[in-house]
Amino acid sequence: MENAIIKIGIVGGTGYTGVELLRLLAQHPQVEVVAITSRSEAGMSVAELFPNLRGHYDLVFSEPSPDVLTACDVVFFATPHGVAMSMAKELVAAGVKIIDLAADFRIENLQAWSKWYGVEHTCPDMMPQVAYGLPEWFRDDIQKAQIIANPGCYPTSILLAAVPFLKAGLVKTDAIIADGKSGVSGAGRGAKVAMLGAEMSESFKAYGLNGHRHLPEMQEKLQVLNGEPVGLTFVPHLVPMVRGMESTVYMTLENDVSQAELQSVLASAYADEPFVDVMPFGSQPETRMVKGTNMCRLAVYRPEGGQTLVVSSVIDNLVKGAAGQAVQNMNLLCGLPETQGLNQVALMP
Amino acid sequence: MENAIIKIGIVGGTGYTGVELLRLLAQHPQVEVVAITSRSEAGMSVAELFPNLRGHYDLVFSEPSPDVLTACDVVFFATPHGVAMSMAKELVAAGVKIIDLAADFRIENLQAWSKWYGVEHTCPDMMPQVAYGLPEWFRDDIQKAQIIANPGCYPTSILLAAVPFLKAGLVKTDAIIADGKSGVSGAGRGAKVAMLGAEMSESFKAYGLNGHRHLPEMQEKLQVLNGEPVGLTFVPHLVPMVRGMESTVYMTLENDVSQAELQSVLASAYADEPFVDVMPFGSQPETRMVKGTNMCRLAVYRPEGGQTLVVSSVIDNLVKGAAGQAVQNMNLLCGLPETQGLNQVALMP
Amino acid sequence: MENAIIKIGIVGGTGYTGVELLRLLAQHPQVEVVAITSRSEAGMSVAELFPNLRGHYDLVFSEPSPDVLTACDVVFFATPHGVAMSMAKELVAAGVKIIDLAADFRIENLQAWSKWYGVEHTCPDMMPQVAYGLPEWFRDDIQKAQIIANPGCYPTSILLAAVPFLKAGLVKTDAIIADGKSGVSGAGRGAKVAMLGAEMSESFKAYGLNGHRHLPEMQEKLQVLNGEPVGLTFVPHLVPMVRGMESTVYMTLENDVSQAELQSVLASAYADEPFVDVMPFGSQPETRMVKGTNMCRLAVYRPEGGQTLVVSSVIDNLVKGAAGQAVQNMNLLCGLPETQGLNQVALMP
Amino acid sequence: MENAIIKIGIVGGTGYTGVELLRLLAQHPQVEVVAITSRSEAGMSVAELFPNLRGHYDLVFSEPSPDVLTACDVVFFATPHGVAMSMAKELVAAGVKIIDLAADFRIENLQAWSKWYGVEHTCPDMMPQVAYGLPEWFRDDIQKAQIIANPGCYPTSILLAAVPFLKAGLVKTDAIIADGKSGVSGAGRGAKVAMLGAEMSESFKAYGLNGHRHLPEMQEKLQVLNGEPVGLTFVPHLVPMVRGMESTVYMTLENDVSQAELQSVLASAYADEPFVDVMPFGSQPETRMVKGTNMCRLAVYRPEGGQTLVVSSVIDNLVKGAAGQAVQNMNLLCGLPETQGLNQVALMP
Repeated sequence: MENAIIKIGIVGGTGYTGVELLRLLAQHPQVEVVAITSRSEAGMSVAELFPNLRGHYDLVFSEPSPDVLTACDVVFFATPHGVAMSMAKELVAAGVKIIDLAADFRIENLQAWSKWYGVEHTCPDMMPQVAYGLPEWFRDDIQKAQIIANPGCYPTSILLAAVPFLKAGLVKTDAIIADGKSGVSGAGRGAKVAMLGAEMSESFKAYGLNGHRHLPEMQEKLQVLNGEPVGLTFVPHLVPMVRGMESTVYMTLENDVSQAELQSVLASAYADEPFVDVMPFGSQPETRMVKGTNMCRLAVYRPEGGQTLVVSSVIDNLVKGAAGQAVQNMNLLCGLPETQGLNQVALMP
Repeated sequence: MENAIIKIGIVGGTGYTGVELLRLLAQHPQVEVVAITSRSEAGMSVAELFPNLRGHYDLVFSEPSPDVLTACDVVFFATPHGVAMSMAKELVAAGVKIIDLAADFRIENLQAWSKWYGVEHTCPDMMPQVAYGLPEWFRDDIQKAQIIANPGCYPTSILLAAVPFLKAGLVKTDAIIADGKSGVSGAGRGAKVAMLGAEMSESFKAYGLNGHRHLPEMQEKLQVLNGEPVGLTFVPHLVPMVRGMESTVYMTLENDVSQAELQSVLASAYADEPFVDVMPFGSQPETRMVKGTNMCRLAVYRPEGGQTLVVSSVIDNLVKGAAGQAVQNMNLLCGLPETQGLNQVALMP
Repeated sequence: MENAIIKIGIVGGTGYTGVELLRLLAQHPQVEVVAITSRSEAGMSVAELFPNLRGHYDLVFSEPSPDVLTACDVVFFATPHGVAMSMAKELVAAGVKIIDLAADFRIENLQAWSKWYGVEHTCPDMMPQVAYGLPEWFRDDIQKAQIIANPGCYPTSILLAAVPFLKAGLVKTDAIIADGKSGVSGAGRGAKVAMLGAEMSESFKAYGLNGHRHLPEMQEKLQVLNGEPVGLTFVPHLVPMVRGMESTVYMTLENDVSQAELQSVLASAYADEPFVDVMPFGSQPETRMVKGTNMCRLAVYRPEGGQTLVVSSVIDNLVKGAAGQAVQNMNLLCGLPETQGLNQVALMP
Repeated sequence: MENAIIKIGIVGGTGYTGVELLRLLAQHPQVEVVAITSRSEAGMSVAELFPNLRGHYDLVFSEPSPDVLTACDVVFFATPHGVAMSMAKELVAAGVKIIDLAADFRIENLQAWSKWYGVEHTCPDMMPQVAYGLPEWFRDDIQKAQIIANPGCYPTSILLAAVPFLKAGLVKTDAIIADGKSGVSGAGRGAKVAMLGAEMSESFKAYGLNGHRHLPEMQEKLQVLNGEPVGLTFVPHLVPMVRGMESTVYMTLENDVSQAELQSVLASAYADEPFVDVMPFGSQPETRMVKGTNMCRLAVYRPEGGQTLVVSSVIDNLVKGAAGQAVQNMNLLCGLPETQGLNQVALMP
């Protein structure tokens, strides 16, 4: 498969993850997007809806059609929750690999899933063919899977920060605090008053104080990787910017561990990872350092030499937090070089 | 003193706290700014440097002069650290009340002060006449003091969030996490590359990961109010906006306490406070809800009914976090109504 | 009427001009808002919808009711076009003065009005009682009117810039260019994809290139003031900021006129105006210099000593461009001091 | 030369055009940056100063050295004015091609140059070897030149908008108005108070009202292309965003020309241009549609069917307005495909 062109279908590409997927795939040498579907925009050219794509695509949004999608090698779902699970069985039966950028397959515990997403899961028998698409910690599973549950943006930034220290047994597992901050593109392209420029500009707030769907996802994956349940408090915040996500993760050290050892644990964990950059001691990761790229940059601190360990983690919520990680997963699924099409340099300034 | 016009001097009014002080004092019916000093801008009219003040002031920046300042009733220091303590003795001897918006008098433990500010304290004998200018918790001290140490912006937002629960004995004292976020005006009006619009716009970062001067200030005041030492981890972050500060404070509950009780503890603590607004359960305080005003708005949550208590606290870093609180302190010092000149409505949108 | 409290009604106060009117009226010593209506939000408290007003109003949105409104002294319409003209007759008959912040009464030529607004005008017989609410050029009319057509934001900024030179006969009347720029609050509080923070942030565009409703309004008023038709090209632009409007107006000089004379013409025209500030030569008016205030600041230039005259004009589109000018008109209508309640200082930074 | 790797030197790469050049060249398959010089940062790694480049460059800033630079094929000057002209002779003598992103070679009339730049031109004898690097109108010259004067950002956006109509003889030449708007990155990476985030955010202003250095550059090139002098008024404005430039150009039609003809004139002029996109009638070019790319997008209008022609032109000031156009010129100079390394898709949102 390595030299053939991969045929790509995208279901529901009118949102921000859809247009970002198109941006990245336009620069990928080994793929061709053969179909992009949207019920609401069927008939409209992609470049008309997203003028940044003028000159890069001749595609037109089409009604979702099983025939077209089953002829693809890989189908991405850039849809609201519930769509991927309604089409997964038919596509997998046709040999198509699925990458769902929504949440349908992110949580193995389907009772928990139903509680947080408010609907029944319609596709439980496909779960054994699903891998959680965080390559740094689930690469082997991904390469063998038919369906990829592309992780949430907050889980990506927080798991990459926390897991090395949990796996190294350096921190207490009962009281992890993750304070997350996201740009407004994370809220999607739907017209909501609270996301108007006049509402969210020049203001900052916590939200989801009473619960956020990324919490059970993180709890489950931390437990899977740690081997036992983990206590996690997560508060997301809205930053007056378009793209970017920073998570500050606070953990309590079990014992006295030097700053150098902490740095070393993190660096070792990601030494071979192309998309995780452990920055030198003293660095302050900024979201703009990863804008438009698939990188996660991390720094670790032990303030005042105290019992608290702090990790700051930055990603572009639309790239490593969504479409870029999806392309990384596609590369793994298709036996392509993992970094192919993902060598963008962050826009600075 | 209540009906006389209070004569005000401002030392060093070319920064953001200076211009904000001028904005607020222009709307105060009981004061007259008789002098504003600046070595660098002496001779320039205030309205030329700050055109928003055109039509409101005829003042000209002057060289600092003891004669002029000792003729004032109140002198504000809107200077870098170190200036207020060099002039305090002379002014107090002349009967002038001092409000320092910098840090010279914020920390009673002068060894800690010297360690964090990197210079010797030159005015230790004035410390007994100092009050920490957080009226909600130190009002009596303020009314009797000669010198007010106007609190830091982060301490204001974090102390108001944490103290009621500490004083009620509901939370553990050894592991409080305060995740602070500030707009860029908090970095001042000095020309620094990192604070250029092209650098800080559309980006978010943690900073001060290895220590921030507001930490010892908060540690000391929490200990004073709590009666014993408190373990506090504090990480500040830079938000791509001009004004506003949000702090999310995480505390661990000692026992099972209901959401309603938590709400009640907070509401009772500030029931009579004109500038602290405990929002109803379910609210998400946004920094724009206090923009340009002296308000602090708070909300409290117990996510998932777990052991962690979360308080979100918003202020305008230049008003309740600096110049507005300074005017509130001035009102207290001078026996004026505490809210006089401070009834602005937040700009929305 | 000067010492009595003016009873105010607001129809349709859920948009940005509504909340801005409430902000300004909260600081006005001579008024009481007795009713605010909204069909969509009836029953909701004003402070719940707009938390910046918490502590300033106990009002609740109510269904529009003639009884309540006819008991008011002044009724503001902060509604979409078409509402004020449907209620004007009844209110005026009851002796109520009307200030319409929408466009129903802005254009005397009702044929032109119908063409641009796409509906028939339902209230032509009230037009003789209408004044165009730009006090600097129509003050006498305003004081005698029953209905005030509060000007559009672009017309306010552009007329104030152009009229003095037209009236002085210094410029050609056939080819005036007005290049306007507005913050996103000008687009209102309706949920539109194009006004999402993720869409309008960090981008700039011209819009209305093929025609904008403020054009006929300006054409008519320029003709009224100039005595003959004026050729005007107007292109509005969207600025990635919340508040503020700058218009750069280009006019062609009839003869050689010195910079000093141009400065003098402008300064003389507005010498007695409390809300127009002609800045000194060399100034660059910035929108933040008027943020939150009712001021218009102007500067005039003759680049390279050529034939083109350039005026830069800044206002806050929600204050002098809407709610502030409405309050100024209310003061005139009610015989109050024209500046009452409008002495805010612009927020800087 | 087409298959060999081009050796690149960059003089003065610590500003925004420098880092942008590095970003673009990192994605160019045919080049290697062998040296980057900076007196102030010599010894610092490029990736430390610009963390977005971590993983893309091992380069270290070095002291400017003739030996290293004369061994390059192409040297870019991303310096303040005056540097390129001091080194041009030596480099050209060594066979090196020069691309100056500053203004040293932009104006053939050296008297005009000296007047606007305030210093004597030290390199007049090299002027015959210079081409003005706007490929759409000077491509042949560029291919034969030794030195490229990379155009200013405003001239790029404005010349591309105006020239087709001038060359077609459709508009009057004596009164062109160009109203330009730029993001703050255009002001460079120097620490200036006026460009602080707290100063320029949420505000808009005209600047350079009394003259801007891009004016004589545009006047000269318009005259060269038009065959006779052109009257041009140019007012630049600062937009509160990082990247992006929009220019609205107003011209007066000589005769009645239909919208369709105007569209056709523009489309024909750029039919074969890879980096100029004439958008369909009704489009509103937004700066974000070109963010991070070398594209210029244009739309033309004749408002109200009147005598005024309006063109809206958007570019990324750091790409087509600086570093991207420089790479386009390098491709032309070196016989590479003109679009090589420049196929980025604009970041949206």
